[in-house]
Amino acid sequence: MIVDKRDFEFLFQWLDMDGLLSRQRFASHDREVVNAVIELATRLGENDLAPHLRAWDSSEPQLDLDGNVTVLPSVAGGVRKIAEAGIFAMVFDETHGGLQLPHLVYVSALGILMAGNLGTASFTLLTVGNARLLANYASPAQIATFAEPQIAGVAMGTMRLSEPHAGSSLGDILARAVLEGEDRYGARYRLTGSKMWISAGDHDVTDNIVHLVLAKVPAPDGHVAQGTRGISLFIVPKILPDGTINDVAVAGLNHKMGYRALPNCALNFGEGKSMPGGEAGAIGWRVGEVGQGLPQMFQMMNEARISVGLAGAMLANRGYQMSRDYALERTQGRRIGAAVGAQVPIIEHADVRRMLLAQKAIGQGALALVLFSARLLDDEKTATTAEDRAAAASLLALLTPATKTWPSEWAQHSLHLALQVYGGAGYSQDFEIEQLYRDNRLNPIHEGTTGIQGLDLISRKLRRDGGIAFAALAERIRATIAKVGVGSSLSAVALAVGDALSEFEQAVAILLAEAEDAVALAHGSPVLAAFGHLVVGWLWLDQAILAEALLAIQDRRFDTAFLNGRIRACRYFAEAELPQMKTWLVPVLARSDLIFAAPIDEF
Amino acid sequence: MIVDKRDFEFLFQWLDMDGLLSRQRFASHDREVVNAVIELATRLGENDLAPHLRAWDSSEPQLDLDGNVTVLPSVAGGVRKIAEAGIFAMVFDETHGGLQLPHLVYVSALGILMAGNLGTASFTLLTVGNARLLANYASPAQIATFAEPQIAGVAMGTMRLSEPHAGSSLGDILARAVLEGEDRYGARYRLTGSKMWISAGDHDVTDNIVHLVLAKVPAPDGHVAQGTRGISLFIVPKILPDGTINDVAVAGLNHKMGYRALPNCALNFGEGKSMPGGEAGAIGWRVGEVGQGLPQMFQMMNEARISVGLAGAMLANRGYQMSRDYALERTQGRRIGAAVGAQVPIIEHADVRRMLLAQKAIGQGALALVLFSARLLDDEKTATTAEDRAAAASLLALLTPATKTWPSEWAQHSLHLALQVYGGAGYSQDFEIEQLYRDNRLNPIHEGTTGIQGLDLISRKLRRDGGIAFAALAERIRATIAKVGVGSSLSAVALAVGDALSEFEQAVAILLAEAEDAVALAHGSPVLAAFGHLVVGWLWLDQAILAEALLAIQDRRFDTAFLNGRIRACRYFAEAELPQMKTWLVPVLARSDLIFAAPIDEF
Repeated sequence: MIVDKRDFEFLFQWLDMDGLLSRQRFASHDREVVNAVIELATRLGENDLAPHLRAWDSSEPQLDLDGNVTVLPSVAGGVRKIAEAGIFAMVFDETHGGLQLPHLVYVSALGILMAGNLGTASFTLLTVGNARLLANYASPAQIATFAEPQIAGVAMGTMRLSEPHAGSSLGDILARAVLEGEDRYGARYRLTGSKMWISAGDHDVTDNIVHLVLAKVPAPDGHVAQGTRGISLFIVPKILPDGTINDVAVAGLNHKMGYRALPNCALNFGEGKSMPGGEAGAIGWRVGEVGQGLPQMFQMMNEARISVGLAGAMLANRGYQMSRDYALERTQGRRIGAAVGAQVPIIEHADVRRMLLAQKAIGQGALALVLFSARLLDDEKTATTAEDRAAAASLLALLTPATKTWPSEWAQHSLHLALQVYGGAGYSQDFEIEQLYRDNRLNPIHEGTTGIQGLDLISRKLRRDGGIAFAALAERIRATIAKVGVGSSLSAVALAVGDALSEFEQAVAILLAEAEDAVALAHGSPVLAAFGHLVVGWLWLDQAILAEALLAIQDRRFDTAFLNGRIRACRYFAEAELPQMKTWLVPVLARSDLIFAAPIDEF
Repeated sequence: MIVDKRDFEFLFQWLDMDGLLSRQRFASHDREVVNAVIELATRLGENDLAPHLRAWDSSEPQLDLDGNVTVLPSVAGGVRKIAEAGIFAMVFDETHGGLQLPHLVYVSALGILMAGNLGTASFTLLTVGNARLLANYASPAQIATFAEPQIAGVAMGTMRLSEPHAGSSLGDILARAVLEGEDRYGARYRLTGSKMWISAGDHDVTDNIVHLVLAKVPAPDGHVAQGTRGISLFIVPKILPDGTINDVAVAGLNHKMGYRALPNCALNFGEGKSMPGGEAGAIGWRVGEVGQGLPQMFQMMNEARISVGLAGAMLANRGYQMSRDYALERTQGRRIGAAVGAQVPIIEHADVRRMLLAQKAIGQGALALVLFSARLLDDEKTATTAEDRAAAASLLALLTPATKTWPSEWAQHSLHLALQVYGGAGYSQDFEIEQLYRDNRLNPIHEGTTGIQGLDLISRKLRRDGGIAFAALAERIRATIAKVGVGSSLSAVALAVGDALSEFEQAVAILLAEAEDAVALAHGSPVLAAFGHLVVGWLWLDQAILAEALLAIQDRRFDTAFLNGRIRACRYFAEAELPQMKTWLVPVLARSDLIFAAPIDEF
C-alpha cells in the first residue's frame, strides 16, 4: 500500500470534513464521494503510477533534433490517467467543467498520487495551478480557451518565472513583451526572452501547453520599469488557437539528481524558430492589468508551495512505510543479551524503532500541517462569515512559508533515516528509497528556497503585518493547550508546546522591535525552522487530544493500536524533536551578530 | 584548490607535529618532508584525481562475461599514480618497504586525495588497512608475499566480512574454511561461501588482489562454533603465489547511488570456477590463531573507521569551498533595502553566510576530530612512556565511534547546505556538489552504521570500561576550559563546552548505573550524537585558544583573517550547534522508555 488510508480517515475527522462538506459550494458531494475519491486516487497511484517510478529515474526525458521533448510512454500514460480520472478538475467551478470539491480533498488525492509516483503526479499541480490562476484573473474568453482545456486535462500548464541570471530575484527579469494589437483573447503581445528551470516546459503528454510567462512591457520610449513593479503576466500557448505553432523553442534540458519524470527546460521565445503571423516573436495575451504579474503569480505560487510541502510529506510517509516493511522482514542480530537462536527482524532493535518513530512523527506531522493548510484554503473561500474567511486567509498566509519548508526539509531528514534503516541495501539501487531521497532534495529549493521562505516569514508575514496574524495563531495554540486537563496523559506535551510558544513569542517581540530590516532578516532560516516546529508541535497536540477522545469513547472506526500509535508519535515529537527549536532561537534571543558581522575575507 | 593548505598548517601546529617528528621512529623525517608530502598530495589530487571525478559517476565499473571487473582507465591510472607517489607505503616500517611517516601525515595526505576524488582515493585505504593488519598479525612469509606488494602498490587489498544475510551480525557468517595442509605461508585451507558489499572486490587496477576473509573452521565432527568466537581470518589471494588463479568468482556488482568508482561486489568462493590444485575451493592461509579473526579484523576496522570519518570531513570541506566560491561569483538580488543597482554576489546575503559558516564549523570541526584521532594512533604506538601509550589507546578507543560517525553524518548536513547555496543549479548535474552529496551518503553506513557505533560507544566504550576512559577525557576537557581566562573573548565558548560536559556526565552516570543493557543501549544513537558534539566543541575551543595566542604574538605564518575566521567558526559552533546536544540527551536524562516500549503493531 502506498498510503495508510487510516491516516486520511483520521485527519478528515480531525479537520471536520463533514462540516466542510455541508457548505453550499460542496452541496453535490458527501462523505461517500470523498471516500470514492480517496479510493480512486489510491488505485491510480498503486496500479498506474507506482509501477513506473523507477523507469523515469533511469530514462530521462529526451530532446530530439527538432527541439521536441518526449517523456517515457509510461509517464505520459500515467498523466493521462490522472486527467481522465478528473483529478485536474476537482477544485474548479462546475461552470468551467470543474467538480467543485474542497481543496482538502484535492490535496489529499494529489498526495496519494505523489506517494505512488512523485514525478508523474507533479504534472497535475503545475496544470491545476496554471488553470487556477487563469480562473481567478483571466477574461472569460481566456478562461474558455486556455484554462478549460487544462481543467479537462487535454492541455497542460507551466509557470515561467526564472531566467538564467534571475532566479529568486524576479525584479531583474529581461523577458520583454511588446504590444501588437487586441483580439478576442485580449491585448496581444510579442514576447522575447529566455526562461530557465521550467518544469514540464515541453513534453508529449498533450499537444498543447499553456505557458504563463512573466515579462516586462517597455514604455513607448523603450524605458522599462525597474524592480518587480514592471512585471506583467502573459498567456503564451505552445499552439495558438488558430493552430499555428508559436515561437517558443526548447534551448536545452537540465539534468537533475532526481525528480526526473518532469522535463526541466531552458526555453527561448521570440528567437524566430516559428514565425506566427509571418514574424518572429512569441504571441502572448496579457492577463489582467500591466504590472500585476507578480501578485497574480503569487496566488499560484502560494498554492504551489502547499503542493511542494505535500510532496515532502508524502515522500516522508512513503519512506516510513517502506523502511517499516523492510524492518519487519529483514532479520539481523538478536535481542540484547541473547547470543543464540534465530536472527530477529530488525524492528526488534531499539535504534531501528527510534528511526521509525522519528519518521512517523515527521511524516504525519508534515501531512497534518499540509492538510490543515488546505482546509484554510477552503475556509478562505467558503467560510460562512467574512470574518472567518479573513481569519483563514491571514493564518494561511502566515503558515505558508512553514507549510512549504517544514515538510520539504524534514522529509529529507526522514528519508535519511529511512535509508539508514535499510543499511547498505538502502544505498543500492535495488530499492526505491535512494530515489525518494534524491527526488525530495528538490523540494527545499523549488518554488522559493528555504532561505526565501525565511525572508517571507520575517519580512511580510511578521514585520509588515505587525505581528497581528501571529498573535491570532498564538491564541489558537493557547486554546488547544487549555483543552488538556491537569493530570492528563498529554500534559507533558501541552507543557512542551506552551514552552515552545513562549520562546517563539520572545523571538517575535525582538524581531518586531528591530529597527533595521537587515538585522531581523539575518535570522530568517532558523526562525522559520523554529516556527515550523512550534506549529507542527501544536497540530500534533491537537491530533493527540482527538485520538484520546476517540479511545475514550471506543470509536470503532479506528483500532486502538492506530490511535495509540498517533499519541506515541505526538509524545515523541514533544519529547525528542520540539525542544530543538529553542536551540535555533538562541542567536535571536541573544541578539547575536556573529553571522551578520562576518567579513567576507574570513571565508 | 581542492583544499586550503592553511588548514593543515594550522592543525599541524595545533597537534604539535614538530614534537611528533622528534620521536625515534620518525628520525629520518622533518617538517620539510611533511610539507613536501602535503604538496605532493595536493598536486596529485588536483591534477590526477579531481579531473575524473565526474567520469566514474556516469560510467560505473563493468563486469564482463568472463566475470572480470574493469574500472575506468582514469580511475585505474589515478590509483597507480597514488601508489607510485608512495602514499600506500607511508606508515609502514622501512623493513617492509615503508616510509615510517606518522599516521597524522598519512591521514592528511589521504584526506587531500579524497577532497580531489573520493572514489579513486579510496582504493588506498582498503589496501593500506589490509597490509597494516598483515604487518601486525601475519607471519614473516605471509607479510613478504602478501603485504609487501600492497605496500609497494602493485597489489590491492579488500576486507571481506559481510554476507547477504549477515551484515552487522558477523557471528552469523556461513563462510567455511577446511584445513588442507601446511606450507611456507602457514596453515592452508579450502574456503567456500558468499560475501556481499565487497568494495574493490575485483578490478583491473592491479593483477593481484589480496582478500582478507572471515570464515569459520568446522571441528573434525563438522560442528561449527556459534557466534563471533568461531571466526578466523584468512588470506585469499586472487592469484596464488605459484601463478594459479584462485577459486574466487564475482557473482555480481551492486549499483549504488554514489561512490561509484569503487566496484562493490558480491563474491563467491569455492564454487569451482577455477580449480587450484585440481579441486574446487578457494585456497587461503590462516592469519594467526583459529578464532582470532574478529579481534584482528577490528584493528583494521578501527583504522578504516578513521578513514570513513576523514572522507566525511573532506567532502564537507570540499563542499564548503565549492559553495563559497559559487557564492562569491553568482550574483542575485541586492542588499536589504537597496532596490536598484547591480545585483550582488550571494555571499552578501546573511542566510548564505550562515550556510557557509555552518559548513565551515562542521567541516573543520570534523577534520580536527579526525586528525586528533590520527595523532592518537601515533601516540598509541610511539609515545615515550607506556603510560602515555596506554592513555592514547584508551582515548582513541573511546573516540573512534565519534570519529567515524560525527563527520559522516554532519558532512551530509553540511553538503545539504552547500547544495542549497547553489539553489536549483546545485540540484543539476552541471555542478559536482550533487555528486558529493550522493557520495557521502554511504559514510554513515559502511564500516559499521551509526546505530552500530552508538552501541559500541555505550556498550564497550562506556559500560564495559566502567567510565574510566570517559573520566580521563572529561579531565582533559576541563583542563582546556581552565586555560580560558576570566573576561577572555572565548569565555562564552568555554562556558558552553563546560555546560555540555556536565550534561553529558549526567547522562553517562545514568547509563553506567542502568542495570539492564537493553535499556542503556536503546539510547545509543542520540548519546553518540551528543558525544560527538561535546568532543568537537572541546576541540574547537582548544583550536580557538591557539588561534588567539597566534594573533596575540602576530605570528606571520597565518594571516589575521584566517585566524579570526577560525575563532568565528568556533564561536558559531558553540552558539548555534553545541546547545543541540542537550536536546538529544533529554530522553536519557528523563529515563524515557517511549521508544523502547513502543509495541510493533503501533507502527
